[in-house]
Amino acid sequence: MARFLTLASCQTGPVQRSTSRREVVERLVALLERAALAGADLAVFPEMALTTFFPRWDLPASDIDVFYETQMPGPQTRPLFDAARKLGIGFALGYSELVRDGNRQRRFNAMALVDDGGEIIGRYRKIHVPGSEMPEPGTTVHLERRYFEPGNLGFPVYGFRGARIGLALCNDRRWPETYRMLCLNGAQVVLIGYNTPVQLEEAPSLAHLRMFHNHLPMQAGAYQNTVWVAAAAKAGFEDGQHLLGGSCIIAPSGEIAALATSQEDEVIIHRADLDMIDICRKVNFDFSRYRRPREYSLIAEQAGPLV
Amino acid sequence: MARFLTLASCQTGPVQRSTSRREVVERLVALLERAALAGADLAVFPEMALTTFFPRWDLPASDIDVFYETQMPGPQTRPLFDAARKLGIGFALGYSELVRDGNRQRRFNAMALVDDGGEIIGRYRKIHVPGSEMPEPGTTVHLERRYFEPGNLGFPVYGFRGARIGLALCNDRRWPETYRMLCLNGAQVVLIGYNTPVQLEEAPSLAHLRMFHNHLPMQAGAYQNTVWVAAAAKAGFEDGQHLLGGSCIIAPSGEIAALATSQEDEVIIHRADLDMIDICRKVNFDFSRYRRPREYSLIAEQAGPLV
Repeated sequence: MARFLTLASCQTGPVQRSTSRREVVERLVALLERAALAGADLAVFPEMALTTFFPRWDLPASDIDVFYETQMPGPQTRPLFDAARKLGIGFALGYSELVRDGNRQRRFNAMALVDDGGEIIGRYRKIHVPGSEMPEPGTTVHLERRYFEPGNLGFPVYGFRGARIGLALCNDRRWPETYRMLCLNGAQVVLIGYNTPVQLEEAPSLAHLRMFHNHLPMQAGAYQNTVWVAAAAKAGFEDGQHLLGGSCIIAPSGEIAALATSQEDEVIIHRADLDMIDICRKVNFDFSRYRRPREYSLIAEQAGPLV
Repeated sequence: MARFLTLASCQTGPVQRSTSRREVVERLVALLERAALAGADLAVFPEMALTTFFPRWDLPASDIDVFYETQMPGPQTRPLFDAARKLGIGFALGYSELVRDGNRQRRFNAMALVDDGGEIIGRYRKIHVPGSEMPEPGTTVHLERRYFEPGNLGFPVYGFRGARIGLALCNDRRWPETYRMLCLNGAQVVLIGYNTPVQLEEAPSLAHLRMFHNHLPMQAGAYQNTVWVAAAAKAGFEDGQHLLGGSCIIAPSGEIAALATSQEDEVIIHRADLDMIDICRKVNFDFSRYRRPREYSLIAEQAGPLV
């Protein structure tokens, strides 16, 4: 196993609806170049990195296809894959995926893991799709559940430069089950892309805690599973909505090792010591010895409290 | 449902091996009086509140019975139960439990939940028993697994003044499954007692993070399950070992609402707004709608990663 894997979180500023794919991909290539120049092995981009976060809108079905990729890479995203090969760096890219399954069209909130040869080596489709199927006026609740079905690939883990990489997207990061499933599947590094609005109309008394609620579950996920977490946000005012930012790289100790401090395109880097995983695992977290799976059956059987 | 439940975490300073039960119980009664005077409905005491944390020692079997309770309440603990009735306050007490099961003696790291009439209304036996069966020289690893078997009562939840209360002990608080199981069983409040040494010989590079690693999983557990958490530590130098302290009351937002700042007997109080649970649940955590139990089967099947 490699001892070090240098991680980069490539935060982007807003991607407006009016921004072309070509322009976005140029920005992502520039971020990837910066990451590679700083010595990164592996970079993570935001969820839906190629487009605006369109689930904020109630759109007619005829208007949404433009936000989805039918090929990955396609002609417009190919330059990013070429850059990875040229720069010798891997990356994970969040995007909206439209696939044909027989006569059905299926839509997933997806992430591809690409190696330093520019080849896709892993795929993830978001399991925890938040929001609503129908507009909920007076709230920040978006329509992600209308535009995407839940992922059908589980929580897979892929090898990259001798390390085991898991993927997750946005709302997934709030659920302890995401990290635990990835940990049990062998993950050492979890790459996360997200879009999170600053506003919280449905619970104004919690609105000031948005950044705390962004970092807390990722820090706990890293600590409780002794994994590295690298998370990339979209940030700033995107089509009138303020996105949170706060991209970060978190150590298996739960410490934030690197933090984005802008609301723009920004690269943060950390040389992740994979040996730290074993050191952290020695303190409390010898999973095979101490976890009690038979006591946890309800977690896999029942969605919510019955009372 | 009651809207408010005033919680008290009753931290204790060290309980030396030389300290008599009578003396300890007097201290606990004094703490309970302080909590009641401050308006508390329900107080939590530390894990093994009645004795020193004896699993730090390699003791001959003949020397250990003195640390266990064979009755609860027994003649020595009865004053605490009487005080609860007199003061009109409930409490949770951690203690070492020795029970006869046919011809077998069984030993559990236990907690009793006592109502404001001085009656036991709930019991918990620690599920995640840490440490080792055999001494591991040069480490902080203790012998809890020699002195206690894992709990056999699951993660039960009990009613108290219209609120639903779950119990957990020390190492349980580090595992996300503890909070999730209690949440799925309907808990609104989780009471935790703990003994955690400051020292960490087996991982000196993490020793400065002990308090962070105390609070992080409890804050995440509160946030991710939208429950109130009240945790009571033993603190200070107990028989030569420095115990961490850091007792706290945590809101369903994950915020630390009250924090012990001494290494001694200390009461902290917070008037917990149970409506905050529903407010927090409205943001992301409508469990029945968003959790995906069928995706989590490995959590209940496999203890650790296979790679």
